[in-house]
Amino acid sequence: MWVEANKNLADIPRYKPGLPIEEAKRKLKLKRVVKLASNENPFSPSPLVVREIRKYAANINRYPESNCFYLRRAICRKMRIKESHIIFGNGSDEIITLALRAFVREGDEVIIGEPTFLIYKIQSLACGARLVIVPHKEYTYDLNSIKKKITPRTKIIFIANPENPLGTYINSQRVRNFLESVPSSVLVFFDEAYFEFAPSDFPRTLEFIKRGRKNIIFTRTFSKAYALAGLRIGYGIASREIIENLQKVREPFNVNSLAQKAALAAMQDGKWLRKIIDYIKNEKKFLYHSLDKIGLFYIRSATNFIIISTLPRKNVASLLLKKGVIVRDMSNWGMRGFIRVSVGKRRENLAFLKALKEIWPVKKRDYAKRRKK
Amino acid sequence: MWVEANKNLADIPRYKPGLPIEEAKRKLKLKRVVKLASNENPFSPSPLVVREIRKYAANINRYPESNCFYLRRAICRKMRIKESHIIFGNGSDEIITLALRAFVREGDEVIIGEPTFLIYKIQSLACGARLVIVPHKEYTYDLNSIKKKITPRTKIIFIANPENPLGTYINSQRVRNFLESVPSSVLVFFDEAYFEFAPSDFPRTLEFIKRGRKNIIFTRTFSKAYALAGLRIGYGIASREIIENLQKVREPFNVNSLAQKAALAAMQDGKWLRKIIDYIKNEKKFLYHSLDKIGLFYIRSATNFIIISTLPRKNVASLLLKKGVIVRDMSNWGMRGFIRVSVGKRRENLAFLKALKEIWPVKKRDYAKRRKK
Repeated sequence: MWVEANKNLADIPRYKPGLPIEEAKRKLKLKRVVKLASNENPFSPSPLVVREIRKYAANINRYPESNCFYLRRAICRKMRIKESHIIFGNGSDEIITLALRAFVREGDEVIIGEPTFLIYKIQSLACGARLVIVPHKEYTYDLNSIKKKITPRTKIIFIANPENPLGTYINSQRVRNFLESVPSSVLVFFDEAYFEFAPSDFPRTLEFIKRGRKNIIFTRTFSKAYALAGLRIGYGIASREIIENLQKVREPFNVNSLAQKAALAAMQDGKWLRKIIDYIKNEKKFLYHSLDKIGLFYIRSATNFIIISTLPRKNVASLLLKKGVIVRDMSNWGMRGFIRVSVGKRRENLAFLKALKEIWPVKKRDYAKRRKK
Repeated sequence: MWVEANKNLADIPRYKPGLPIEEAKRKLKLKRVVKLASNENPFSPSPLVVREIRKYAANINRYPESNCFYLRRAICRKMRIKESHIIFGNGSDEIITLALRAFVREGDEVIIGEPTFLIYKIQSLACGARLVIVPHKEYTYDLNSIKKKITPRTKIIFIANPENPLGTYINSQRVRNFLESVPSSVLVFFDEAYFEFAPSDFPRTLEFIKRGRKNIIFTRTFSKAYALAGLRIGYGIASREIIENLQKVREPFNVNSLAQKAALAAMQDGKWLRKIIDYIKNEKKFLYHSLDKIGLFYIRSATNFIIISTLPRKNVASLLLKKGVIVRDMSNWGMRGFIRVSVGKRRENLAFLKALKEIWPVKKRDYAKRRKK
């Protein structure tokens, strides 16, 4: 008998490594590739960030601060919370895993939406959880059905807000009502990776925690709006009790030192951040408008990506790839005939639209018809 | 009732954040501090590494390669193994956690030495394992006692080779004999973080895996000899079956992109590495010699640190701290009266020795006596 893996791993799909862009180019014999697949910020981070990384590049022989000392202090001051309310992760994904490891044991239940961020599924299964999947309704969380699925074994409810891959969000009022009906023994995990792109009636989860709510956590990331995806840094905010338990399962040097320096510098360049967010919002409108013209259905998004129906065609992602535009095919998420496109620079968005139009020509007559309605 | 954490977390000590050096200086009113506490490389990494980080500092808006594509290829070519035999971690610590998560479930047994690297303990408890602790014998693993402790519930045996905090190692012959008596259902985890400093009769664990051995894994790190501790990158090598299971519990972007670039560059500067290792070995000899002169007991080390007995004095670490020298006090590891000192630059080692001599003056008469023996 060989070393036997935990039986719950059997349901986790086998790891299939993808190709780096340079390799994909070579393979597909493409000169230029536009990548709009991973909801990345198309811009380099703030110049303050780049300067800081270059400055500390030679100091990496030392271990990182285990507790992100300076960054922790800066975020807590900005948010006006105590330092015992925050934990940092190797990307905010890691906080998902830490929460599952701290609170979920074999046979416990975890509620997720569908479609949703795949990490919730994979890491829940890795912890031996029973997954309770509540399909979205009208492209957003079906909070009423979720409530009904809560049992004494429910440990965590994952709510990506705004949602990935749909791009929709749950507003403040709906979150408030929902929380009133969730028992205090169930942790509601708000994954707010796209927070910076969300509109003004987005819930202020921080206020719930400040008012003493002990069964919620929310996470934020430096990967999206702040453009630090490659460096891996995010954080979670919750009650002291929740954070203490997450700290117990965390590896002591989980956040690298350049990420800590970079995040601190990024926080200090508010001007850069506002410029980027404005740019992305403008480009998103431009994409909406262009998709309207082509006549494709899409979901209005509170994020930096848009999900688009290409039905009845189901192979649009691979057709786009041949033209050098990488978007996310949604069939792995149970949404065959949908693609997810990140909002890029104008040049990249134009490349995407050009390729899309070649696949999807608008007949002038059809277009005139639609406009009349 | 609040959100209930897994009961096995109760045995894990509460997280106590330490102070960054700059803050410690301010608090202790010290101008200069020498840190020899974390077995870090006292030198900046190879200039090739620093150049690479500076070059890619602006590209971190993109996610890292999920599978460390180029680095994986380079290591596998160098080691002459297939790419399915390797997994990368956010430091090699993360591989420890992945192995526990993939193979250990509540009630399974994990065998560790004592004293040993604390992560084995913490992460085993976090996974609900029953810890079977086998105290070291003559400052090294008591392999005979370990063998006797194997039961049908044993899942992993952690062997840090060379050992941390003792600095001793198990040679090739002893490892070979030991492996012959371990059932194939038990994973033997060789943590080889200090591999580059080890002597020539160190076991060639890679060869066991090449010859088809399925129940061992060994890890290596870029944190020590390669001086990339701040960036967090290490890897594990094992059979395809073991690696596949670890991949299932791994977060997809666990290794940041600058770490991947840095590690690849570090591998290419063999000259730098040899120079560093020679320097550290020389300084270690210098420290041995100086400790002999002072008359302190220490353990000869196969690593870049030395463990020293200061008995009967038990507060030497804190006395050294007041003089601006940070070393590791071993009381937390059950070795009161011992300190662990990393080998630093000559200047740092001299500062340590100077401070130590102030605490520990050698009486000329005693010294003369000892020399006569």
